[in-house]
Amino acid sequence: MFPCVLKAVDVVFSVSSASRCVGRYCSRRAPPRRLLRVAQALDGSEVGSSVTVQGWVRSVRSQKDHLFVHVNDGSSLQPLQIVASSELSDSLLTFGSAVEVAGRLKESPSGKQRVELLADRIDVVGGCNTLDFPFKTKERHGLEYLRQYPHLRCRTNVFSSLLRIRSVAAAAVHSHFTENGFVQIHTPVITSNDCEGAGELFQVEVRSFKIKSKNNGTKEPDQNFFSVPAFLTVSGQLHLEVMSGAFSRVFTFGPTFRAENSQSRRHLAEFYMVEAELAFTRSLEDLTAVMEDLFRSVTERVLTQCPEDVDLFHQRVSPGHRVGTARVQYDVLGITYTEAIDILNRSSHQFSFPTTWGCDLQTEHEKFLVRHCGDVPVFVTDYPYDLKPFYARDNRDRPQHTAAAVDLLVPGVGELCGGSLREDRLDLLTARLAQYLDLRRFGSAPHGGFGMGFERYLQCILGVDNIKDVVPFPRFSHSCLL
Amino acid sequence: MFPCVLKAVDVVFSVSSASRCVGRYCSRRAPPRRLLRVAQALDGSEVGSSVTVQGWVRSVRSQKDHLFVHVNDGSSLQPLQIVASSELSDSLLTFGSAVEVAGRLKESPSGKQRVELLADRIDVVGGCNTLDFPFKTKERHGLEYLRQYPHLRCRTNVFSSLLRIRSVAAAAVHSHFTENGFVQIHTPVITSNDCEGAGELFQVEVRSFKIKSKNNGTKEPDQNFFSVPAFLTVSGQLHLEVMSGAFSRVFTFGPTFRAENSQSRRHLAEFYMVEAELAFTRSLEDLTAVMEDLFRSVTERVLTQCPEDVDLFHQRVSPGHRVGTARVQYDVLGITYTEAIDILNRSSHQFSFPTTWGCDLQTEHEKFLVRHCGDVPVFVTDYPYDLKPFYARDNRDRPQHTAAAVDLLVPGVGELCGGSLREDRLDLLTARLAQYLDLRRFGSAPHGGFGMGFERYLQCILGVDNIKDVVPFPRFSHSCLL
Repeated sequence: MFPCVLKAVDVVFSVSSASRCVGRYCSRRAPPRRLLRVAQALDGSEVGSSVTVQGWVRSVRSQKDHLFVHVNDGSSLQPLQIVASSELSDSLLTFGSAVEVAGRLKESPSGKQRVELLADRIDVVGGCNTLDFPFKTKERHGLEYLRQYPHLRCRTNVFSSLLRIRSVAAAAVHSHFTENGFVQIHTPVITSNDCEGAGELFQVEVRSFKIKSKNNGTKEPDQNFFSVPAFLTVSGQLHLEVMSGAFSRVFTFGPTFRAENSQSRRHLAEFYMVEAELAFTRSLEDLTAVMEDLFRSVTERVLTQCPEDVDLFHQRVSPGHRVGTARVQYDVLGITYTEAIDILNRSSHQFSFPTTWGCDLQTEHEKFLVRHCGDVPVFVTDYPYDLKPFYARDNRDRPQHTAAAVDLLVPGVGELCGGSLREDRLDLLTARLAQYLDLRRFGSAPHGGFGMGFERYLQCILGVDNIKDVVPFPRFSHSCLL
Repeated sequence: MFPCVLKAVDVVFSVSSASRCVGRYCSRRAPPRRLLRVAQALDGSEVGSSVTVQGWVRSVRSQKDHLFVHVNDGSSLQPLQIVASSELSDSLLTFGSAVEVAGRLKESPSGKQRVELLADRIDVVGGCNTLDFPFKTKERHGLEYLRQYPHLRCRTNVFSSLLRIRSVAAAAVHSHFTENGFVQIHTPVITSNDCEGAGELFQVEVRSFKIKSKNNGTKEPDQNFFSVPAFLTVSGQLHLEVMSGAFSRVFTFGPTFRAENSQSRRHLAEFYMVEAELAFTRSLEDLTAVMEDLFRSVTERVLTQCPEDVDLFHQRVSPGHRVGTARVQYDVLGITYTEAIDILNRSSHQFSFPTTWGCDLQTEHEKFLVRHCGDVPVFVTDYPYDLKPFYARDNRDRPQHTAAAVDLLVPGVGELCGGSLREDRLDLLTARLAQYLDLRRFGSAPHGGFGMGFERYLQCILGVDNIKDVVPFPRFSHSCLL
């Protein structure tokens, strides 16, 4: 019944010629020239070829005999310069319009770009009224201004760079874990659990048809779709723990939710989290090694694959944070919570929140610790037992009673990752709660895991101050645009 | 402020030796032997080495002098055979228990496996009460039986194979698009839009604290968290369309939701969808080429990377669907909706649903068409205009009035993908609706896109009948287990 699948392997290699005939469509498709993306045109390998390029106009400059048009299609930060006879001038050829340009690629005489396109045809396929368009050519708009136009801000250099970096970082997360033997689990968004036992949840109900209701009364929403109250997940941890009973390494990477009514620069209602769970852990170092590898590996891939986009942020969005192009080795430090409290109490800095042993570390404390350690990532381990959720493994180290939990603090952001060894001892858990027990009854192995806030990661590597500027469509209290 | 980032590139290469000192943990970690995953041990390259392996016991067989224990850690379908002196026997060493085994890898004298582990130590780190454990050693449990144990079914061969395949297929989707210049967009789960304008939606509200409410009245949920009604997304299309105004190729791959009160084998409340959007499309072939490439490329990677897991399904779950190991070329056919209706009406088959021009194609029709075309994937194009949503591009081909929409039908499943060219002509859209207009005002380019149901894809390649068996934690009406 599935011969197509069983037959699929060999054929794949014959498919790469994309012009295969698919039914009656083949006759429709005969582009006269090679279609190139802007990034391909810019790489120089096609100089001398006759090509077609499609994209959006970033600037138009008219000289006596020539037009200079910059076209971008999102494949690179750099636009392609089009040089055309002024006869090709067109009143529709404006900033923001969508164009298709045919011509020949040549080396550019200017030092500003390697390659330019000598056009013999420019088609405006979609005009743009520049008076109505909220962005102006050559103008740099602030991130707050851009945030008002969620459906258009992807047309700006800074936000298209952000989205390319986000895409590369997301692919890097997948590649890094896959190459290291982790199985990806699609943990559910809708759940009947409340993993953290804290924080405000979003509840999910079937839409109430208040408008359509004919009897003028309010039709109650159907709360029984799932037969139990259902919420948007705050963490995939429990579901990963289930899977770490069969796969010794698993990860998930998807949206998570908090209904905190916060207007802060640090919180979103919907954000992305990378979470991993490992079985047969011996100590927190089994986790910190994985957290550190993840951070280094993803960052290395981002810096290698989109250096221009990252540079744009370090130059324009977080100027002063750029320390030349020197990329030398750094160490990740590790301190205990107890040592962290000592550092805070020995400092002369005035903190807004208390720093006595047993208090939770606030962002001001975390940022201070990072600076104190030389602006490098810092692991803080062995937090007070009472600060951590029931599933964190008891260190049994009274009188300083701690849990085997760890946070990774990074420059500019504070907490980036949080993780713990999980309590795998059935007798200790029994004393605490029932729901969790069946996961420990059948071949329980010591395990641990962590989560990394993906937006915070992007803020950290790019120096972006407001979390709303590193997500394509931010959701927060009183805002659900688009 | 972010020196760590700028310094990160070079150091990555020095990190691979995982034993770097991270603060005070280094002294804790000194495993005497190399820790190998089962898949690594099985590949034969470490024969002769002293190693440690961790995992869960799949079977224990006692002979006079020897114990034979099969251990699996989720890294492969095949377990590793442990051979130990019967002195290492332990009453806790049962089916399902978690163990750590140290010994020497050697070639196996048996023909059943290439490699086995001669153990000199077996530690049971977590026992398993086999009387309570719902699965029995060597027994094959049905998929329906397994579905009752969402927290344990990953311990079975068939479901761990499914999850490995799902993970490989998901990674393949990311790799395929990334290698072809698509930018991944994290389209939001929470949205104030209803993309399809049809179907039941889940509404999102802040949890109502009915239990905690002290005044004995029912506290109303805060419907104003976002200041507008908010729903779980049914499609990322609109958000991809936004992005296709700046990136000529984008994709999204994440959870989508339908509140249909359906108990069918074909529907979930939460499922994964792969969606892509392309700008500057000329005809439906621009879409069908991408859909076909995606299907072939992901399938090729799955068959290459987990052949044993796929074979398990073709042998055990969908026996009879396996057509030898011949993997030869197949063609994907293309027919129009009008031709499809002709085929249905010329057949002698009795359909439950009508087959007059203008009727929607039902699953029975789709499966018939696939069989009629020789059990290969079939594109059906140019559907009646009135069957498709407002955003599908009008073919303007009266009297047979159709839209430039396409579905991909596959053996055993029916519709796998659906897509269309989008109406990019502002005047035609104006006649239909206002909300969508701002996306066409500024450099509108012809574009189109499609979505592929990821679970249906897995059903198709594996021959799995019930969609609940290809998702780790199924959510459907009256069920939200875990």
